[in-house]
Amino acid sequence: MQVSFLPDEIVAIAKPSMVKGSTAEAIRGIAGLSAAVAGDLSFLGNNKYRSQVRESRASIVLLPVDYAGEPAAGQMFLWVENPSTVLSLICGRIEQLLWPKPTPGIHPSAVIARSARIATSATIGPLCVIEDDVTIGECCHLQAQVFVGRAASLGEGCWLQPGSIVTAECRLHDRVRLHPGVVVGSDGFGYDFVRGRHEKVPQVGIVEIGPDVEIGANSTLDRARFSRTLVGEGTKIDNLVQVGHNVVIGKHCLLCAQVGISGSTTIQDFVVLGGQAGIGGHITLGKGSKIAGQAGVTSDTEPGSFLRGTPALSFQLEQRINVLKQRLPGLFDRVKSLEEQLVDLKKSSARDEVG
Amino acid sequence: MQVSFLPDEIVAIAKPSMVKGSTAEAIRGIAGLSAAVAGDLSFLGNNKYRSQVRESRASIVLLPVDYAGEPAAGQMFLWVENPSTVLSLICGRIEQLLWPKPTPGIHPSAVIARSARIATSATIGPLCVIEDDVTIGECCHLQAQVFVGRAASLGEGCWLQPGSIVTAECRLHDRVRLHPGVVVGSDGFGYDFVRGRHEKVPQVGIVEIGPDVEIGANSTLDRARFSRTLVGEGTKIDNLVQVGHNVVIGKHCLLCAQVGISGSTTIQDFVVLGGQAGIGGHITLGKGSKIAGQAGVTSDTEPGSFLRGTPALSFQLEQRINVLKQRLPGLFDRVKSLEEQLVDLKKSSARDEVG
Amino acid sequence: MQVSFLPDEIVAIAKPSMVKGSTAEAIRGIAGLSAAVAGDLSFLGNNKYRSQVRESRASIVLLPVDYAGEPAAGQMFLWVENPSTVLSLICGRIEQLLWPKPTPGIHPSAVIARSARIATSATIGPLCVIEDDVTIGECCHLQAQVFVGRAASLGEGCWLQPGSIVTAECRLHDRVRLHPGVVVGSDGFGYDFVRGRHEKVPQVGIVEIGPDVEIGANSTLDRARFSRTLVGEGTKIDNLVQVGHNVVIGKHCLLCAQVGISGSTTIQDFVVLGGQAGIGGHITLGKGSKIAGQAGVTSDTEPGSFLRGTPALSFQLEQRINVLKQRLPGLFDRVKSLEEQLVDLKKSSARDEVG
Repeated sequence: MQVSFLPDEIVAIAKPSMVKGSTAEAIRGIAGLSAAVAGDLSFLGNNKYRSQVRESRASIVLLPVDYAGEPAAGQMFLWVENPSTVLSLICGRIEQLLWPKPTPGIHPSAVIARSARIATSATIGPLCVIEDDVTIGECCHLQAQVFVGRAASLGEGCWLQPGSIVTAECRLHDRVRLHPGVVVGSDGFGYDFVRGRHEKVPQVGIVEIGPDVEIGANSTLDRARFSRTLVGEGTKIDNLVQVGHNVVIGKHCLLCAQVGISGSTTIQDFVVLGGQAGIGGHITLGKGSKIAGQAGVTSDTEPGSFLRGTPALSFQLEQRINVLKQRLPGLFDRVKSLEEQLVDLKKSSARDEVG
Repeated sequence: MQVSFLPDEIVAIAKPSMVKGSTAEAIRGIAGLSAAVAGDLSFLGNNKYRSQVRESRASIVLLPVDYAGEPAAGQMFLWVENPSTVLSLICGRIEQLLWPKPTPGIHPSAVIARSARIATSATIGPLCVIEDDVTIGECCHLQAQVFVGRAASLGEGCWLQPGSIVTAECRLHDRVRLHPGVVVGSDGFGYDFVRGRHEKVPQVGIVEIGPDVEIGANSTLDRARFSRTLVGEGTKIDNLVQVGHNVVIGKHCLLCAQVGISGSTTIQDFVVLGGQAGIGGHITLGKGSKIAGQAGVTSDTEPGSFLRGTPALSFQLEQRINVLKQRLPGLFDRVKSLEEQLVDLKKSSARDEVG
Repeated sequence: MQVSFLPDEIVAIAKPSMVKGSTAEAIRGIAGLSAAVAGDLSFLGNNKYRSQVRESRASIVLLPVDYAGEPAAGQMFLWVENPSTVLSLICGRIEQLLWPKPTPGIHPSAVIARSARIATSATIGPLCVIEDDVTIGECCHLQAQVFVGRAASLGEGCWLQPGSIVTAECRLHDRVRLHPGVVVGSDGFGYDFVRGRHEKVPQVGIVEIGPDVEIGANSTLDRARFSRTLVGEGTKIDNLVQVGHNVVIGKHCLLCAQVGISGSTTIQDFVVLGGQAGIGGHITLGKGSKIAGQAGVTSDTEPGSFLRGTPALSFQLEQRINVLKQRLPGLFDRVKSLEEQLVDLKKSSARDEVG
């Protein structure tokens, strides 16, 4: 990140409600409060770190309006509504430097089928392969070594990063972003067991990706047996996620890293799946369901459910079980003690009767 | 999926035992019963969906012989032995359109070592790299951007999809299919801890893949420390699966997505591993073992075992534990109540004695 | 592995303290004791296999000094301090044949930005892409189809295997080894939920990889939101591992396959993470912590901790719970029996009082 902002530029972006102090340093980096050095911008985004502001060596610190304190010499404090949002604004500026707008055109090393239709504002980087009858929309950017298979189509403004792969006939809507190594349209995993062997069930459907979807590095999305595997508008998928054939994912979901979704399952809108969660096949997760990391879900969930554990239970029940689980050794002891006491009591009551 | 079948063509493939109704529509798609529209073929493959047949708008519906009902106007019902099998036959026809037979030859952009031996019926697609002393058998298809390392060999009819990688000296038998991004022959993960550092244990074995094996997108198979990591004939591996060094997988196994197998473990024939299951190192899973999704297995299993949970237990015991687990809060209450009653009983019995 | 060592060459490498027997065979392979045939070298590295030495058909067997036994005719036994270490020495020799030293230079099919600075001793293989302002150090080897993004830098002696990807501005120190398909520098997974949509939080930091780090096939490491995601010197990462943004991994750690680490977590030096373990965000794993396979850790751990389970508990407690878990059905029966006995006892004691 090679950046340089004058303090005035930071102030112009942050639009602070109050400013204290000043600095002569140009801002050349961003860092957490305790790690920051002169020339860094820092911020208080989480109350947990409030005590670190005083000792931070950052040249500029973004602070929430309820923070009370004075900058050190040569340090500038900016009070803003939401320090984290302001930081994102500044990072947005840096992002434009990190990923400069590509020049439209087709790199001479790319291998493009004659029948492909590529918008003139698109950029096809080095060593990409584009097969027959592909459509690439305006302002798309295929960075390098990307593969787009026969008759696949990309909407406008898609960004396919190095080594990402879209196989035959799959369809990406506008502004889809594929990180390196993503595979869209691998075959679904379907076999019939016939005469002692697994015979392949042909997988002739497609994958369709809605607008504004982002898919993390090396994630894999299988094409449908027939019809389509679908990812809804605005859904964000992290790295190394597996989406099985005929899965339908709704709008604005979040799938954290290493999640796996088995075939023919429906994930409704606004669902959040924690890292490494596994979702069984042929079920429906209701709108807004939240599934904790590593959970295993094998039956339908009500809208708004919050589940954890394998097999997944309601968050509260699972949490209570996790507490009680640790008290199991004691419980076994208590039951043993009860049994012994009862034996004694019976003996003594038998003696009473005899006596 | 751009297809078009006349109703007569569907009948010719399906060979129905009974036909009712007729349609003027050409079949341009395949869809589930409730999603189908005019021009679609649909099918009743699962009794769960029986009630959807009546309202389906599919132009042709494949039905099992025990289904009783009448088609709507302009709709055709075909009764067949197994609707799912017939659908696979039809999809098989579509598959040939989806993946047209490639033209033999070497794309001029591929980089091929002079010492490589490539069968004349093989197709080497754009931007592939083939190193020295590689052997590529008849009718192999390396689609695009594939890498085959020094002295590796491929049998006949292998299909290596875009971005798949086979490293030095590894061996694929006939009809192996690698989906995009598969890595065959990465180094095993072996280190000796010497003087405070992890020193690499050289990994100089290979990976050998039996005939008719299919490996899903972005899966990784490590080369052996010495000798070979082996995948047996007819085994099917899903996406994002990890196979450690010196693992031996038998014939006709199924490994679902995101499974991980640690080094030197043996998986016997016909084993099925559910998604995200983890198998420890240096153990043997007996023939036909079934391991549920997310299970963790760290010791040998008997042939025919069916296990789930971490650490994995018999399916029935684990299921019973999962039920009882939810009753733990009640059990703690019951034990507490028992303890209180016993105290009362002791008190009263003490009073009796005193009285 | 096409190798051939004369028995004398093996003796010269092994430097045995004692030799018995002799063989006329050249050593053309390495195999386990029971699998070995004539022409193979084998070894006793694990006492478990001691009984297999006698029947091994290996031409040369490496044995620990406490082994007592005689070679068969035409067989040579070599007694050494550590058979496994000697095997690694021999494999090290084979490794040089497996991965021959590449010839320095740039393959004509590689696409190199004019502003890239590439050391003259480096090897840039076929179909690599190197963007503007990249620095590649001495003796680096980019094998084939590698991508290095704008302003990224590699130290000396790095080895980037086919299809590995380093994105803009990321930094690899000396002797980093990336296996096929590794992605260094994908975007962190950060979004703000604004007006019903997930808005991207720009990820403008980098990934920095310390010296002597090795990263397994298809693993993914996300760039920081700002500042850097860091992997410390000598740490070894297995296949399909996910490292989130702003994670800091210490020196000499081991991360087994399919591990996932959420954002902003710190892993101190010498930590070992078992396969498929999941580590939550914003926590610290203390120095030398060991986390079992499939464990889920969501809070800080003390240095030297040994945890397993989800949520992770101390190894001993979790192990005890796992034993007791299997006795739950019996415990429920015992509590039910206690309740019935208590009812009876109360009845009889009531009768006593009445009587």
